[in-house]
Amino acid sequence: MTLRPIGTLHTPWRTIAECPRNGRQPNPPPLCTAVVLPEFVEGLRSVETLSHLILLYWLDQARSAELVFTPPFDDTPRGIFATRSPRRPNPIGLSVVALEKLNGDTLHVRYLDCVDGTPLLDIKPYFPTTDCEPGASMGWLRRPV
Amino acid sequence: MTLRPIGTLHTPWRTIAECPRNGRQPNPPPLCTAVVLPEFVEGLRSVETLSHLILLYWLDQARSAELVFTPPFDDTPRGIFATRSPRRPNPIGLSVVALEKLNGDTLHVRYLDCVDGTPLLDIKPYFPTTDCEPGASMGWLRRPV
Repeated sequence: MTLRPIGTLHTPWRTIAECPRNGRQPNPPPLCTAVVLPEFVEGLRSVETLSHLILLYWLDQARSAELVFTPPFDDTPRGIFATRSPRRPNPIGLSVVALEKLNGDTLHVRYLDCVDGTPLLDIKPYFPTTDCEPGASMGWLRRPV
Repeated sequence: MTLRPIGTLHTPWRTIAECPRNGRQPNPPPLCTAVVLPEFVEGLRSVETLSHLILLYWLDQARSAELVFTPPFDDTPRGIFATRSPRRPNPIGLSVVALEKLNGDTLHVRYLDCVDGTPLLDIKPYFPTTDCEPGASMGWLRRPV
């Protein structure tokens, strides 16, 4: 199970320390870009018709996996699979982003929260019929961050 | 960029041909399971507090990547990144699932649409504050499937 980058994400954040806690911060969220490699640009056909996308990317700057840890804004140890920490067994990041514009090989998007230069793995259409669960519980995360 | 399975998905569908078009079919959706490998079970702590999860998995039975194709219910060629076809450059599948119960190493979930035995790559909490976009456009896919 081997991955290859399909492009690169560009954000205002040069280090993990600079990254916001999630893609809805800061407010208003800055414009970011996803630049797709030439050999995959053909796969963008009709993407411009979509308002929102799911981006998957490789968290290449994340430290080694940590199965249990206490989040900084919490006082209880949580399992990695109950959090969005980047220190995962398979460090794949996921963001639901708003597509502002598609210009050739470049997607202009909002709501990314990763480091500049992060390798892009996949672009999926966001379909509210299968991807939106407005009534989902925040679970242990009582105070939204 | 190498992945390792963290577990296995179990569904009623033994072949790709048997799989429903998406996880909201059939209705009512059958109960499926995600069984996590012993070395990753600790990472499930607090997952039981969540109502919905995002599962990522490896589409190991998908044929080779196809950048442009005409979906069976459509008459226009679309780019792979505008569709949820499994024939992706990086064949990572994604489902938003409802968690019915966590029992030791086994998550009981609804809304999976993949083949039985699919390798599980990641489990993420679904947070409506960042993952839900009820107003997202269906884009080119005018007739929801």
